[in-house]
Amino acid sequence: MMKLPRAVRQLIDSFEKLPGLGPKSAQRLVFYLLHNPEAELKEFSERLLALKRDTVLCHECHHVSDHDPCEICGDVNRDQSLLCVVEQPLDVQAIEGSGVFEGLYHVLHGSISPLNNIGPDQLYLHDLVKRLSGVDELIIATNPTMEGEATALYITEYIAQAKDRGQNINSGLKITRIGHGLPVGADIEYADGVTLKRALEGRRAV
Amino acid sequence: MMKLPRAVRQLIDSFEKLPGLGPKSAQRLVFYLLHNPEAELKEFSERLLALKRDTVLCHECHHVSDHDPCEICGDVNRDQSLLCVVEQPLDVQAIEGSGVFEGLYHVLHGSISPLNNIGPDQLYLHDLVKRLSGVDELIIATNPTMEGEATALYITEYIAQAKDRGQNINSGLKITRIGHGLPVGADIEYADGVTLKRALEGRRAV
Repeated sequence: MMKLPRAVRQLIDSFEKLPGLGPKSAQRLVFYLLHNPEAELKEFSERLLALKRDTVLCHECHHVSDHDPCEICGDVNRDQSLLCVVEQPLDVQAIEGSGVFEGLYHVLHGSISPLNNIGPDQLYLHDLVKRLSGVDELIIATNPTMEGEATALYITEYIAQAKDRGQNINSGLKITRIGHGLPVGADIEYADGVTLKRALEGRRAV
Repeated sequence: MMKLPRAVRQLIDSFEKLPGLGPKSAQRLVFYLLHNPEAELKEFSERLLALKRDTVLCHECHHVSDHDPCEICGDVNRDQSLLCVVEQPLDVQAIEGSGVFEGLYHVLHGSISPLNNIGPDQLYLHDLVKRLSGVDELIIATNPTMEGEATALYITEYIAQAKDRGQNINSGLKITRIGHGLPVGADIEYADGVTLKRALEGRRAV
């Protein structure tokens, strides 16, 4: 069988490495790009280079930003006593999109996942404790997955141990977990058992 | 709502332009890349630049290749009397993959699609006639879509007119259309009406 040109094969390889793209989709994208004007390919190429060069991780919350500290950490109007732990930068965007959270964030950049060789040391987790001296409530908003739950549990225990060691943590610190249950618009009929269990446990007086 | 850094937003834009990628998938890909080592981003970026720089379209068949003429057109062992017209370079790869076609190709780089402002002049169509002097059979393997059928029809009529004008076309030229019917492994029960109609029309003695 005839081989594709080297440049084509290599770009297909690069696209195939991206999550959710198989060999067929990667091929389709590359042949689509082949019909694009050279200027557009150059722009795409330049933007890939700029991605890490022109962004920083905020040294406080580790969110991706143009500057350090990031827009949220640098905003004195936000509630400094409320801290929300999330797995990924996109989670910050999602919660900001809801428009109801006024506190600060802490981005872990992952969750504890022994199968993928990701332990607490691979996450931005240990500097979380340093931020807790003036915090009244820590909301753990890791994903409701096995990894997210394990991470939430680990954080809770880690903070308890840090308290015992006498680290500077607000003695009245309340640790909460983001609510689980039925997503708005969902059908009870189609909800899975675990979600229903969580929804019943999380019931509230009307 | 907090804005994403400019570099992140711009790369999301570039990914969103690709076919089959919506805003959510583009975001997911960019945040995945953010966790990649810089060297890998550089490689990806360089490969995008190389795509057009290091490939050529064969001046004979217009297939994408490392050199001109391409591997297939330059292969004297292939049957020069058999020509197969396809819409895209990927179609060449697919037919080569079947391992049964020994002739040459002609890649149109599209199909006639008035809705997308693509007429015969936007395709590599008019230089097809020049290649027909020594060809015994022209197989039209455009897609079994409305656009592909229209293109097949156009090619047939265009060749007839070229013959009338006295262009150098093999007088015994046979024009065929690639067979349509049930794909191997399919279930008659689930086949659509048009495919079944084609399958019945294309029945063969056993």
